[in-house]
Amino acid sequence: MPAAPWTEGEFVERLRTEGQRRYHDQHPFHELMHEGGLRREQLQAWTLNRFYYQTRIPIKDAIILAKTEDARFRRIWIERVRDHDGREEDGADGGLELWLRLAEAVGLARAEVASLERVLPGVRFACDAYVTLCRESPLVVAVASSLTEMFAPDLMSKRIAAWERHYPWVGSEALAYFRGRVPRARRDGEFGLAFVVEHARSRELQTACVAALVKKAQILWHLVDSVALATGGPTAVVPGALHAP
Amino acid sequence: MPAAPWTEGEFVERLRTEGQRRYHDQHPFHELMHEGGLRREQLQAWTLNRFYYQTRIPIKDAIILAKTEDARFRRIWIERVRDHDGREEDGADGGLELWLRLAEAVGLARAEVASLERVLPGVRFACDAYVTLCRESPLVVAVASSLTEMFAPDLMSKRIAAWERHYPWVGSEALAYFRGRVPRARRDGEFGLAFVVEHARSRELQTACVAALVKKAQILWHLVDSVALATGGPTAVVPGALHAP
Repeated sequence: MPAAPWTEGEFVERLRTEGQRRYHDQHPFHELMHEGGLRREQLQAWTLNRFYYQTRIPIKDAIILAKTEDARFRRIWIERVRDHDGREEDGADGGLELWLRLAEAVGLARAEVASLERVLPGVRFACDAYVTLCRESPLVVAVASSLTEMFAPDLMSKRIAAWERHYPWVGSEALAYFRGRVPRARRDGEFGLAFVVEHARSRELQTACVAALVKKAQILWHLVDSVALATGGPTAVVPGALHAP
Repeated sequence: MPAAPWTEGEFVERLRTEGQRRYHDQHPFHELMHEGGLRREQLQAWTLNRFYYQTRIPIKDAIILAKTEDARFRRIWIERVRDHDGREEDGADGGLELWLRLAEAVGLARAEVASLERVLPGVRFACDAYVTLCRESPLVVAVASSLTEMFAPDLMSKRIAAWERHYPWVGSEALAYFRGRVPRARRDGEFGLAFVVEHARSRELQTACVAALVKKAQILWHLVDSVALATGGPTAVVPGALHAP
């Protein structure tokens, strides 16, 4: 007999716990970033490599859009794609454009970042795993993988304060992407959580949702870990990994 | 006007050069393995994590099988799947079974290895990238990604000698998988190379084949690098990576 589904409260608690304990805000490279301890080249490497992640977001969100017949869901979810790609009527300054400006502000050449040529292999594998996860999962599981957004607003707020204080040479205006993410991640995280709770009704689906969120947290962690390793920063095994003996 | 295709000689030279310079035999963790410098737990971690790669092989080869209408190609290629899964008439001792025996010989619990539960996230991302690469590429490009086999026989021979000499406690019989791979990798590498040369006739396809081989070499490298990082072994950025500034 299949296990009974978790109650809504149990399910939400499990998503929060398993996601939060692996969230990359606890990675020592991020901690060092927030303490002002990163060298300029480390900040550059992080910005360049993280841009690859940013470019995967509208792709995975388009994959999610294509998974449903529900126009109402699509009308809401499509805003995520537009957040990153920009909206024609606003002069098209989306998240990708803002990130490229951030890259320039940390001293990178825009074209080099946009080319994606210098992205570390480990970063590429991790970010591509996110796209594959969304492609191969049912809708509700793909949505669950986005729920790291529940933890993003706090990290963004901390990052903005830390950059303004410790890396003033970047310039406050360049942090526009982070600022925009605070309310958006909150809005998206709430919508995503409500959707997942409503649609993952069997224990099997609930378990798959938790597993997808865990994998997504590992992806974010691996991105930072790869940047840290390549730039002489502190690395760490992702919390909760049942790693090799 | 599209660039003219490389001649057969130029193309093969490029595949060999770009593959060889990134091949994981040069990873410092492998070098340490061959010098006898790995601790037992490091050998165990390598064996456990590499098993995840082994389990991806029949899957990616089945994906390749499904890409062609050519029954002759499939008759030859299917032997790769059978090499790993075993053949009913031979008592089903394929490469996966031999690897599990190797795992036992290095002191791991068979069930734990087979469960794949302790595989490092970075190893999983890299190996899954191999499956995705094969899934999303045209046949000839997917075949090209297998051409690291051109370099495998030398590495296998070196590994067998090194393990017999430096890790005699593992037992010579447990190295059966490596021994079987020497002639098979040679056979498979030659077939693959001939196929790629015959079917990649445009510069565009040739370039895609080289890129697939490069990516595959990065995947193998990242696997070893992740194991090294998690076990306090030596890590290194993959040669030729245009990594972050």
